[in-house]
Amino acid sequence: MIVRDFNIEKKTDRRVADQKWESVRLLLADDGMGFSFHITTIQAGSEHTFHYKNHFESVYCISGEGEIEDLATGKVHQITPGVMYALNLHDKHTLRARRELVLACCFNPPVTGKEVHRADGSYALAD
Amino acid sequence: MIVRDFNIEKKTDRRVADQKWESVRLLLADDGMGFSFHITTIQAGSEHTFHYKNHFESVYCISGEGEIEDLATGKVHQITPGVMYALNLHDKHTLRARRELVLACCFNPPVTGKEVHRADGSYALAD
Repeated sequence: MIVRDFNIEKKTDRRVADQKWESVRLLLADDGMGFSFHITTIQAGSEHTFHYKNHFESVYCISGEGEIEDLATGKVHQITPGVMYALNLHDKHTLRARRELVLACCFNPPVTGKEVHRADGSYALAD
Repeated sequence: MIVRDFNIEKKTDRRVADQKWESVRLLLADDGMGFSFHITTIQAGSEHTFHYKNHFESVYCISGEGEIEDLATGKVHQITPGVMYALNLHDKHTLRARRELVLACCFNPPVTGKEVHRADGSYALAD
């Protein structure tokens, strides 16, 4: 059994951060669960375009307020606590936070913790 | 892109319930994500023994207070908001809620939604 506390791990190298965005990886590939699990915080007023070409991701809103735009269709979905979106088609999307968003995210395949967002908004697959 | 709201889905057959326990399945096997994602609520004062022999499960505490006992070792871990446990060894465990627990749960392989807990605390694999 693995037990980890976000409030502790956010002070370790399990926390990765980029412009107006940070993520604490509570489970990574080397935990052997077959998925990774992250708590991600998106700063209020920020906007991010991601395109996980190599991963499926689900995102559950714990707190905050924002929206996600599906860039293939232009459709915008409101994000409030309790809303989940799942990128089952590797959907390219723009995420906007009106208030700080705290999100519980699952990735399949699991991320290793070494990934950085590439120019196209994707993560590379592990070697 | 799949978008679902816990506050709506909890009134549908995505909600399953048993004694002092309920779970709203926001993602199931047929969503094709390779994992399932559930928001599970454990009633205050209740105790549950589970043993997912065929699944890996991670559980993140959104709210509430309780504890998990690893029945192989007897070790007890406190559960408060921000704590995650992962049953990477298919660990048999007892979960106790002192205050109502709201938990974000990921299963690999994904559950189909038809499973019931068997006498041994496990879920069967899908056919």
